[in-house]
Amino acid sequence: MTASSASSASARQPEIRKDAVFNRFVIFSPARSRRPSDFKSHSPTKSPNPNPKHLSCPFCLGREHDCAPEIFRIPRDTDDWKIRVIENLYPAVRRDLEPSSCCEGVVAGFGFHDVVIETPVHGIHLPDLSQAEVGEVVVAYKERVCQLAKNGLLEYVQVFKNYGASAGASMTHSHSQIIGLPLVPPTVSTRLDSLKEVFDKSGKCGLCEASSEDILINESNYFLAIVPFAASFPFEVWIVPREHTSYFHDLNEQKAMDFGGLLKLILTKLSKQLNDPPYNFMIHSSPFHLPPSHLPCAHWFMQIVPQLNVVGGFEIGSGCYINPVFPEDAAKVLREVNCT
Amino acid sequence: MTASSASSASARQPEIRKDAVFNRFVIFSPARSRRPSDFKSHSPTKSPNPNPKHLSCPFCLGREHDCAPEIFRIPRDTDDWKIRVIENLYPAVRRDLEPSSCCEGVVAGFGFHDVVIETPVHGIHLPDLSQAEVGEVVVAYKERVCQLAKNGLLEYVQVFKNYGASAGASMTHSHSQIIGLPLVPPTVSTRLDSLKEVFDKSGKCGLCEASSEDILINESNYFLAIVPFAASFPFEVWIVPREHTSYFHDLNEQKAMDFGGLLKLILTKLSKQLNDPPYNFMIHSSPFHLPPSHLPCAHWFMQIVPQLNVVGGFEIGSGCYINPVFPEDAAKVLREVNCT
Ligand SMILES: Nc1ncnc2c1ncn2[C@@H]1O[C@H](COP(=O)(O)OP(=O)(O)O[C@H]2O[C@H](CO)[C@@H](O)[C@H](O)[C@H]2O)[C@@H](O)[C@H]1O
Ligand SMILES: Nc1ncnc2c1ncn2[C@@H]1O[C@H](COP(=O)(O)OP(=O)(O)O[C@H]2O[C@H](CO)[C@@H](O)[C@H](O)[C@H]2O)[C@@H](O)[C@H]1O
Repeated sequence: MTASSASSASARQPEIRKDAVFNRFVIFSPARSRRPSDFKSHSPTKSPNPNPKHLSCPFCLGREHDCAPEIFRIPRDTDDWKIRVIENLYPAVRRDLEPSSCCEGVVAGFGFHDVVIETPVHGIHLPDLSQAEVGEVVVAYKERVCQLAKNGLLEYVQVFKNYGASAGASMTHSHSQIIGLPLVPPTVSTRLDSLKEVFDKSGKCGLCEASSEDILINESNYFLAIVPFAASFPFEVWIVPREHTSYFHDLNEQKAMDFGGLLKLILTKLSKQLNDPPYNFMIHSSPFHLPPSHLPCAHWFMQIVPQLNVVGGFEIGSGCYINPVFPEDAAKVLREVNCT
Repeated sequence: MTASSASSASARQPEIRKDAVFNRFVIFSPARSRRPSDFKSHSPTKSPNPNPKHLSCPFCLGREHDCAPEIFRIPRDTDDWKIRVIENLYPAVRRDLEPSSCCEGVVAGFGFHDVVIETPVHGIHLPDLSQAEVGEVVVAYKERVCQLAKNGLLEYVQVFKNYGASAGASMTHSHSQIIGLPLVPPTVSTRLDSLKEVFDKSGKCGLCEASSEDILINESNYFLAIVPFAASFPFEVWIVPREHTSYFHDLNEQKAMDFGGLLKLILTKLSKQLNDPPYNFMIHSSPFHLPPSHLPCAHWFMQIVPQLNVVGGFEIGSGCYINPVFPEDAAKVLREVNCT
């Protein structure tokens, strides 16, 4: 699609697109964005003001004793840390439980649940950090996932970030989380099976082929930032390695720095364009014990979702999403945000 | 589980349960409910006050001309209607488009998107209606689904309700929605395949067998209300027909009235116990053209989800849910709510 057809796209007919990665349908319907609301607080939710009393924040420099145990810090062996990876004090799964096999649909809640404190300073958010500092956060993720990969009892690791209350965050100090699970979530299997299906049909990896000019936002040496062809959410962005790679944690330092730069740029653009929206990001990597037949079609990526709409009963019920913004239009807008 | 062990369950270890209907894992972790929040507005979200200027509400009696065209009303041929089924003025899918087959992952946005106005009176909510009146809303759903089933071009119909802004509602006047799709959403296929798998293993329908004493809340002549064994959301409730039935729209009038009574009771209990929470409900029925081999394992039900937590990056990324409340505990609490 050209730029001029993109600008008239809001008059387009609704269209249903198949997301071949997550195996879901998304309904693109520009008319939906015109519907009224008689709830006062419905429109795009800016995250509420954080509690100014950050003196009580356990994630701040000097409050390390209020946290669950540390796993490592960057740089190592210094009081003046920049990043800390710590245990989650209220873990969903517990590292001290005996792993168990599945019995009548129940498995012990064994697993690892960590928090990555991205900066010692309260009130600094991820895109406020320098490109190299964001890169170091990515390195911290990578190092922790490498440790978990060696554990042997884990099958899948989810790295994710919640920013803003409407994206689920309970803590305002900039952080992200890492959960290691003793099983492969069915949603993850579905993603890999969908990509396998694409591969079997076309002989190509669906993510190596995911980008085209009209959905590209920005690119770096090693990564592309796109609005995916069948984005479930308005202004959803994927950062995809240009080169086919199945595992996030195979990233080297140079690529991590490059990734950090692109991530900083995209988060800055989303914040500028959408008025500092709440957002989630998720790293979609591969299960540790992936059958070799899946390697040529398993391609890791990061999904960034600004939370502009509330998901309703249709989405919960059918698993289909309604997105009022065509990906080409979102990509054009984000391409043109000026961050200088 | 006995009542006394249920009450001590909050000290239980985390547990991962497999939801054999939606094919997902849910992590039950009571410790999670103790985590602090430094966002002021984080705790259970009561729906914000509706705009009192309901004089401008198009769903009110006397404002029929401000709505998209009517499909039918109950009772028929009267100005003094109790329920209206109308077209959605801002439809996600459009009835006037040519249906198309799938081409490069794209289908025309053909389909039906209707609104069910559940009462002529603003400020009256579904559980405020009498048992018979709630039953009539269920009859209206049923009649509309029967009409859509005859269309021939539709594959699946999703009936759903959003109540409260944090459950996605944009209109405060009591209503629900019906979307008819020209395709079967993969999530729906997954549900049917999971139930087929249970059937193939055990020779029994997973939903005929879903209830046990510890997760039962209430029962009526034809239905059971339970907290499912692997509920994704705290205080999630399913209303399940006792008798094996694949299609919601096969419900007769007598059963619809019985269903209405149980639905009213459950919504009243949730409102009382959880302080009028936002909620969604969804009717999970079967695709119109289900292969006969699936009929013995396809069992319709209604899922009711109070929105108490915000879904975060872990859930979006992995498709696993974290639920701080064990189903047995939620069922016990809801069983004991006094509604007299
Ligand atoms: N002193 C301390 N030391 C160590 N850790 C501490 C701590 N104090 C708090 N924590 C932990 O810090 C984490 C902060 O995480 P977030 O703000 O991203 O969201 P949270 O996990 O609470 O829930 C969101 O994300 C999850 C997962 O997506 C959803 O289930 C949920 O509904 C949503 O609100 C919490 O998990 C908390 O347990
Ligand atoms: N005069 C009129 N005549 C006829 N119809 C009218 C009308 N004025 C408004 N409408 C329609 O009435 C409906 C009201 O529905 P809800 O309040 O349940 O939520 P909505 O569909 O807006 O979005 C929620 O539900 C959908 C589906 O789950 C999610 O995609 C979304 O994010 C969430 O906010 C809207 O769909 C609107 O288009």
